[in-house]
Amino acid sequence: MLTLDFSNMIARPNTAAGTAIPESAWAAAGQRFTDADAALRREYKDGVLGFLDLPGDAKLAAQSTQFAAEVRGRFTDVVVLGIGGSALGPIALRTALRPSGWNMLDPNARGGNPRLHVLDNVDPVTIASLLDRLDLARSLFVVTSKSGGTAETMAQYLVVRGRLEKALGSEQAKQALVLVTDPEKGALRAIARSEKIRVLDIPPNVGGRFSVLTPVGILPAALIGIDVSQLLAGAGDMRQRCSGGELAKNPAGVFAMAQYLADTTLGRHIDVLMPYSDALRDFAAWFVQLWAESLGKARKSDGVHVGPTPIAALGATDQHAQVQLFMEGPADKTVTFISVKDEGTNVEIPSRGKEIPELAYLGGHRLGELLDIERRANAGALAARGRPNMTITLDRVDAWHVGALIMMLEIATIYAGALYDVNPLDQPGVELGKQFTYAMLGRADAERARQEWNMLPQADPRWSV
Amino acid sequence: MLTLDFSNMIARPNTAAGTAIPESAWAAAGQRFTDADAALRREYKDGVLGFLDLPGDAKLAAQSTQFAAEVRGRFTDVVVLGIGGSALGPIALRTALRPSGWNMLDPNARGGNPRLHVLDNVDPVTIASLLDRLDLARSLFVVTSKSGGTAETMAQYLVVRGRLEKALGSEQAKQALVLVTDPEKGALRAIARSEKIRVLDIPPNVGGRFSVLTPVGILPAALIGIDVSQLLAGAGDMRQRCSGGELAKNPAGVFAMAQYLADTTLGRHIDVLMPYSDALRDFAAWFVQLWAESLGKARKSDGVHVGPTPIAALGATDQHAQVQLFMEGPADKTVTFISVKDEGTNVEIPSRGKEIPELAYLGGHRLGELLDIERRANAGALAARGRPNMTITLDRVDAWHVGALIMMLEIATIYAGALYDVNPLDQPGVELGKQFTYAMLGRADAERARQEWNMLPQADPRWSV
Repeated sequence: MLTLDFSNMIARPNTAAGTAIPESAWAAAGQRFTDADAALRREYKDGVLGFLDLPGDAKLAAQSTQFAAEVRGRFTDVVVLGIGGSALGPIALRTALRPSGWNMLDPNARGGNPRLHVLDNVDPVTIASLLDRLDLARSLFVVTSKSGGTAETMAQYLVVRGRLEKALGSEQAKQALVLVTDPEKGALRAIARSEKIRVLDIPPNVGGRFSVLTPVGILPAALIGIDVSQLLAGAGDMRQRCSGGELAKNPAGVFAMAQYLADTTLGRHIDVLMPYSDALRDFAAWFVQLWAESLGKARKSDGVHVGPTPIAALGATDQHAQVQLFMEGPADKTVTFISVKDEGTNVEIPSRGKEIPELAYLGGHRLGELLDIERRANAGALAARGRPNMTITLDRVDAWHVGALIMMLEIATIYAGALYDVNPLDQPGVELGKQFTYAMLGRADAERARQEWNMLPQADPRWSV
Repeated sequence: MLTLDFSNMIARPNTAAGTAIPESAWAAAGQRFTDADAALRREYKDGVLGFLDLPGDAKLAAQSTQFAAEVRGRFTDVVVLGIGGSALGPIALRTALRPSGWNMLDPNARGGNPRLHVLDNVDPVTIASLLDRLDLARSLFVVTSKSGGTAETMAQYLVVRGRLEKALGSEQAKQALVLVTDPEKGALRAIARSEKIRVLDIPPNVGGRFSVLTPVGILPAALIGIDVSQLLAGAGDMRQRCSGGELAKNPAGVFAMAQYLADTTLGRHIDVLMPYSDALRDFAAWFVQLWAESLGKARKSDGVHVGPTPIAALGATDQHAQVQLFMEGPADKTVTFISVKDEGTNVEIPSRGKEIPELAYLGGHRLGELLDIERRANAGALAARGRPNMTITLDRVDAWHVGALIMMLEIATIYAGALYDVNPLDQPGVELGKQFTYAMLGRADAERARQEWNMLPQADPRWSV
């Protein structure tokens, strides 16, 4: 089970004004949520929310599981070439659902499954280093791009393809590649067709940051032995829980509405996600993309720039880094904790140094207990100082719960889009930077961007030190 | 050399009002900076800014280098037990200054140097997994805590100590430990004395988040073969560059003042640090602690909660995650890019698929060139849309430049403390959470916290879903 406790977001009898949402405001938000839910249903009917169909799309899931079954045992290393949603999803799933330190475990500890590397940048140092140490004859490269033409991913692909052909020859090189892209459009699809390279589908109506439950995430997951059927089952269960317009019963709705009201009525426009679990460290980075890229944009009605700013944190680690700011900096944040009931491993803290106060109180407790107590202490301290927060609790970090959490936050993003009055599915803000890049690289169709680029003011030597 | 170009922070003739700092405002800030610099000189004379002395403290550096020389060849793995500044510094140095994927390289590729693991949390899964796969007879545990009593680090220490004694016996266990702490005070120092365990010093006037150039960072760095003398030389050079009260000549001053004016006069209170270099990915996380924990607090004069919110990003990766928000979300951010002139490795993008526009323009360029062009495109696009930004340029990512960058940002933090009128050296906001933790764990001296904890309102089942 997955629960969301938002008691520390709602005003108590003695809460100072402006530090929590009044009960009356929450009650009044019910109708607003019902409208947002109706908007989601309309968009779903219009066919633009394809991610909602993924839990039930057994045929799509089978593309990944069948491919993984076919190649089982052939590869020691899987390398995803991808950026943005194509990278963050696979990384989050690996860290959450495979044993800690996966790529450093020996093959037995990995149950014979391959390592998983994700190249999410075009830094030559990282790429050269990884390619140098891989056994290319036993490595599979998953090239992932929804559009099929992402500059960074295409550059990686060209470099890898060149290396593979040199090492293995032209035909074998193709066997080391699998592409993940739109079923019809784009360069990757064209390459797959003309060169007969294996290719898996990203449904046209599922955008990059909502694509973790397509082959974008499911194929790497299946290749390293994650139970993808449980991932989809958890997501399906959550979709069901979030299928009604009554706020009090809809976890995704509560998450979105609490964040929205905290922003627009309390000035809390920075949304921290802080799991107390190393396994969910990279999940928070996945959420940052989802929330930032979906909601940070110009409002549909009037063009005003809106949207919350998400921040990833990790408990207890960030109690010694960011929590001072969360607690005592400007009153502009909410914190959502993720708590895990059963951490799966029991490590007792031995008793020792009974005469040393800094040691004496720790002995006999468990590490997981300490972690959980620190979370409760942090949540309580924030609330006591007028810093609203909420807590998502998972029974454990397994495929079912991670699937549920993914679906909850994806649906919450659509609701938040309706509340903020933005289109959560586009990203027009990154277009100008792309065009400038094309212009500087000499892409033929970037003439207009080249002109705008050349008009930009130059660096001024007075403003350099 | 290290330069800071802040042209995109200063208004040009056609810049829209409120999107950049007017030249007149910058000129007027000169005196204010001179005052902030004078305040720093006073604090230095008062002896509270010990981090400024570290570049010249050969004796302290020798503690680490001598220890590293003594044990060279004995250990395959070094494990830092630490949290906050005790963890973020070593992680940042490893990622910046050792080859990519250090812990996954074979011993030859590591030049015979050990792996470096940093346990920065009390998650039982991570800790159990690491301890299970280490060869304890060839592992060195560095236990780092300035206060000598950090709960998480003490818990880790107790667990590790227990494991070591079981595996190696009581005497050998001590040989696998080295402590890094205050020269006089605290539990770790007491343990070192009474049990005759090796211990290195953190000067009393250097706080955790300013401690990377003490044995906190220098010892792990020396153990894995980083040239710590170059690190200190770069830091020393930057200290020299930042030793005067003239704003135009002081890189740390410019960084602090530009961020401060952008916050207080333009509403840009979120400060993004975005290196275009995988090697500096973890450096940005180090900066987040430094900036957040130093500046996010109550103003000295009136108790108002102030301070910027730092965010770590990575180019080009985050162009597909956070940049949409930076570009089109609320006008509340600055972005500081870090650019690297010579990335050290040349990877050419092969020409292929001349008939496919998404591939054709990439062939013949280099990956490093693509990365740099993307940075310039992103900076230009942000500026064109009224989003102020600046760029730190390093000739290369080496120990000298990283040392300089560390010192620049540490000095900038002290200047920013003066400008924001906060004490950058304390962290009172985390105390309540600590006390609540002690209360729940039954620490004897936490009676008052126990009472306050028990008074906190309970979770309300109405606010749970």
